[in-house]
Amino acid sequence: MVPDITALLKETCYRVFKRTRGLVGTELGNERFEVGAGGDISRKIDLVAEAAVFEVLDEYNFRPTIIAEEAGIVDGHDGYMVVDAVDGTTNASRDIPFVCCSLAFSSGVTLSSVEAAAVIDLTNRDLYHAKYRMGSYKNDRAIRVSTSTPNSESHEFDDIIIGLNLSSVDPSSIMKLLKVVSKSKHIRQFGANALELCYLASGLLDAYIDLRGKIRITDVAAAYLVVKEAGGKLYATNGSELDSTLTSSERISFLAVRDERLFTHLASNIGSP
Amino acid sequence: MVPDITALLKETCYRVFKRTRGLVGTELGNERFEVGAGGDISRKIDLVAEAAVFEVLDEYNFRPTIIAEEAGIVDGHDGYMVVDAVDGTTNASRDIPFVCCSLAFSSGVTLSSVEAAAVIDLTNRDLYHAKYRMGSYKNDRAIRVSTSTPNSESHEFDDIIIGLNLSSVDPSSIMKLLKVVSKSKHIRQFGANALELCYLASGLLDAYIDLRGKIRITDVAAAYLVVKEAGGKLYATNGSELDSTLTSSERISFLAVRDERLFTHLASNIGSP
Repeated sequence: MVPDITALLKETCYRVFKRTRGLVGTELGNERFEVGAGGDISRKIDLVAEAAVFEVLDEYNFRPTIIAEEAGIVDGHDGYMVVDAVDGTTNASRDIPFVCCSLAFSSGVTLSSVEAAAVIDLTNRDLYHAKYRMGSYKNDRAIRVSTSTPNSESHEFDDIIIGLNLSSVDPSSIMKLLKVVSKSKHIRQFGANALELCYLASGLLDAYIDLRGKIRITDVAAAYLVVKEAGGKLYATNGSELDSTLTSSERISFLAVRDERLFTHLASNIGSP
Repeated sequence: MVPDITALLKETCYRVFKRTRGLVGTELGNERFEVGAGGDISRKIDLVAEAAVFEVLDEYNFRPTIIAEEAGIVDGHDGYMVVDAVDGTTNASRDIPFVCCSLAFSSGVTLSSVEAAAVIDLTNRDLYHAKYRMGSYKNDRAIRVSTSTPNSESHEFDDIIIGLNLSSVDPSSIMKLLKVVSKSKHIRQFGANALELCYLASGLLDAYIDLRGKIRITDVAAAYLVVKEAGGKLYATNGSELDSTLTSSERISFLAVRDERLFTHLASNIGSP
């Protein structure tokens, strides 16, 4: 029998956590295999984690269409599941304790039709989950994005912490971000964007920006709902609310923020393309 | 009786860890106080941590000249102790689990005369220490910087992870880093430079770059020795080995790397001032 979808995602996250113990930061987990569907070289930890996801789905005989980094698309008939079994593989390969597994369940083929999501921190077992219109949670306690402090406009950047994905960013994108970076007192890049977005959802970051056009939709589908249900907003670079087709090939740019006011402020400091 | 200096630094680190439990990520720890000697607003966690340092020194009646962020210079006669009781105060204020305490003991007033150092991760109690010519250790196990992979020159950037401090970086420094950032597949910024340097010393990062000219010598004195004793190198922007006077006002730029070869490679990709 198929359980409640949130319960299923959580159980799957915990299974991935269990199966990847001993593979974070080890030679074994770091072993390289054939290229995954997303174009990356897969490491053993990626494959073990993805296998753990299929294992739980098999146990429940639950057959959603799977959209995954390693396995690509696997056709099913019980809705859609977007799987990023290990986000932060490079961190895992070096034992940097910032790695997660990210799972989203959707009734349709767009980001905005994601109904349930779970992200587990594979270092400390913290589990973030969200359900459409039902809020976001960290270890079952409700989380919210940070609230605006009453700073004057000129000091808007003083207390905010901005997560920024700059890995392999092209020079023109850096130029667009020049003002934001130079005005920001606190830039962060931890190296696993789904978990960074969960930090935003929990109020640890105020914004998360990725303008590289390189992030896969599989990497953000779950965290998208966690941020939204925690009260945050996600925008495309044209200023519209972020949406996209759920495919493993689709690449996007986006700005995620605690509120619209901060988006307006950031956008006014980001150069045009 | 004054114990072995390494034992003293370690005991002090553990005391700071103990005293700051419950202050990381809390309203209480986040309370603001008068401006510290280094020019920052002090938070309760900074003051509690620094008091814990003085507490241990008092217990041993050990009186080095203290060079500290909050207390400034406190004259003594048992050598010099550089104290950054909390590095990563902003992270601590948000409960971002990347915060440390950094202590260095020196016989002279230069960075290169630092004889012993200890850095404790205030989230998970991992303790890094180093002694001049005696190596670097994490929880008493020897650590080394990462070793070069036999990549061809053109792929030099593929597998390396570069820690970069970009907070409040001026636009001209970003321009200098344009090539390095755009070629690097893996940029990181965790928000507590002493601990990031300990990551470098343990092989988790391959380089750590801060060209802002804003970092205080108090922030790097301990990690400087941890990196060097782990086999790493630290350079000033003119290419000479990093050194500096130990004062709380001195601000520096530097590149820390696993080896000279990587420094040469990075330097050739960094624009001139």
